[in-house]
Amino acid sequence: MASNIRITFFGTGGSWPTPGRGMPSIGLQIDEVFNLLDCGEGTQKQIMKSKLSFMRIRNVFITHFHGDHFLGLLGLVQSMSFNGREEPLDIYGPAGAIGILSNALNVGYYTLGFQVRIHELRAGEAYDLGKFVVRTHRNDHPVPALAYSFEEKDMVRIDREKAEKLRIPSRLLERLREQGSIEYGGKVYTIEDVKGGIRKGRKVVYTGDTRPMADMAEFARDADVLIHETTTDSSLEPKVNEYGHSSSRQAAEIARDAGVRRFFLFHYSPRVSDLGALESEARGIFPESYLSRELMEYDVPVRR
Amino acid sequence: MASNIRITFFGTGGSWPTPGRGMPSIGLQIDEVFNLLDCGEGTQKQIMKSKLSFMRIRNVFITHFHGDHFLGLLGLVQSMSFNGREEPLDIYGPAGAIGILSNALNVGYYTLGFQVRIHELRAGEAYDLGKFVVRTHRNDHPVPALAYSFEEKDMVRIDREKAEKLRIPSRLLERLREQGSIEYGGKVYTIEDVKGGIRKGRKVVYTGDTRPMADMAEFARDADVLIHETTTDSSLEPKVNEYGHSSSRQAAEIARDAGVRRFFLFHYSPRVSDLGALESEARGIFPESYLSRELMEYDVPVRR
Repeated sequence: MASNIRITFFGTGGSWPTPGRGMPSIGLQIDEVFNLLDCGEGTQKQIMKSKLSFMRIRNVFITHFHGDHFLGLLGLVQSMSFNGREEPLDIYGPAGAIGILSNALNVGYYTLGFQVRIHELRAGEAYDLGKFVVRTHRNDHPVPALAYSFEEKDMVRIDREKAEKLRIPSRLLERLREQGSIEYGGKVYTIEDVKGGIRKGRKVVYTGDTRPMADMAEFARDADVLIHETTTDSSLEPKVNEYGHSSSRQAAEIARDAGVRRFFLFHYSPRVSDLGALESEARGIFPESYLSRELMEYDVPVRR
Repeated sequence: MASNIRITFFGTGGSWPTPGRGMPSIGLQIDEVFNLLDCGEGTQKQIMKSKLSFMRIRNVFITHFHGDHFLGLLGLVQSMSFNGREEPLDIYGPAGAIGILSNALNVGYYTLGFQVRIHELRAGEAYDLGKFVVRTHRNDHPVPALAYSFEEKDMVRIDREKAEKLRIPSRLLERLREQGSIEYGGKVYTIEDVKGGIRKGRKVVYTGDTRPMADMAEFARDADVLIHETTTDSSLEPKVNEYGHSSSRQAAEIARDAGVRRFFLFHYSPRVSDLGALESEARGIFPESYLSRELMEYDVPVRR
């Protein structure tokens, strides 16, 4: 069975909030595994407005330690504890994560009823998290910052006709795919007996904050979804680039060069009121460009 | 001229947010002086939804260092800096404030373009802040915690008839009140020459978190406004008191015993969905009980 992969945008702004736009945070559900990508101030309240429960977050991936991308963690972790969480929480981030988060999660008076495990990830590495693989990419930003790629593993397709000919009951096929072989009616069948090709796993890339980088297109190659920061449109490009950010034009070029299926604009400057201008600019370059909006959901289609 | 004193409730919940209720924070404007009382997560966004500008905050008073009461400061201070603030910001809190806030305001990467001055206040003291006096009261809560009383100074009433008889132009009367004496037409007039009695200054008390305390009624004596925490109604009193909080019944008794003019309920548990029950319970004891609501404003009437 293919996984359900759902993206929920909790906050889509950057730097500081506006009345209608919160600090960056994205939910990435891969079946029952709820991953949180960045966690700016106000994220817990946004999650409460969504269909998701903040108690079920398994992993948190922080792109970098500018306040707008992680200060929501402090209250979120306390709320989890208030509500009786006992399962450990894994938080991943770039170099410096352990020092910064150990300090941040000790601010003020409180006791934590569960374990927070902080992991520093290196750039350019791949980490197997069971259900999916996470790859990291070093961003071009004034502080250590990572882009993340979440990659579903490839899956053997089962040829139903082959299975029927061998009289393997359909209820056993999922187990055969998982285990690679089963015994049934005194015989051993392997996955090769029923194989109907390979379904490529899906890929979701979230950049966090970065200047435009040619090798980001390589990193995002063939992704189902690219969420690339777009702080403003190109009219402010020199300033935006100076501060380590990208324009909608620059991000759309990366989406086009990477050959992604869908590109979401994200991380809008609080000074931008007309998001339509960013979207039009991006679509002129890459037609499958879409604005992310607060509490918007997107189900990543299974590859055929 | 009497000051304009306005209260704005930015967040009215406690512990953790709900979709419709944020973490505790209150604006107390005394003419041009914008004081912020507590600053839970999400406060800056709420201020942006109000008529006020977060850039104009002069003083912040933190009751205690449980996360829900102060974690919003971290992002707020960063946003002030992003927006070019240069004026110093004064933050007041109970014992431990300097250590906790110096640490908290250093979390993650950022530079601050203005000075943050942190002041630890002792319980049971009075501090003259020019336009008003702040008094502190030691709360009954598991960590060091203060209640605050903000007291407008008493003001001499000017008897217009006396002033007219002396032929002092009305444009000079405000200066006479401020300076105590003026010279006009070769003569010196003192405030005693035009005095028409004293108008008592107004008093606004905010408790922050506390178990009910008999001496809180003394502290809040004759206040124009008492904002007392009311975590739940009395059905959960033993549990609420155990954790260092008050019920709506207990807070209303204090409002009644203190003889305040108006009592606002505040700091509702996220487990409370029916605020009407808290209000009815309070009104049964003290009729001038009102629920605080997110973004509600209240102008404190001048005393006659």
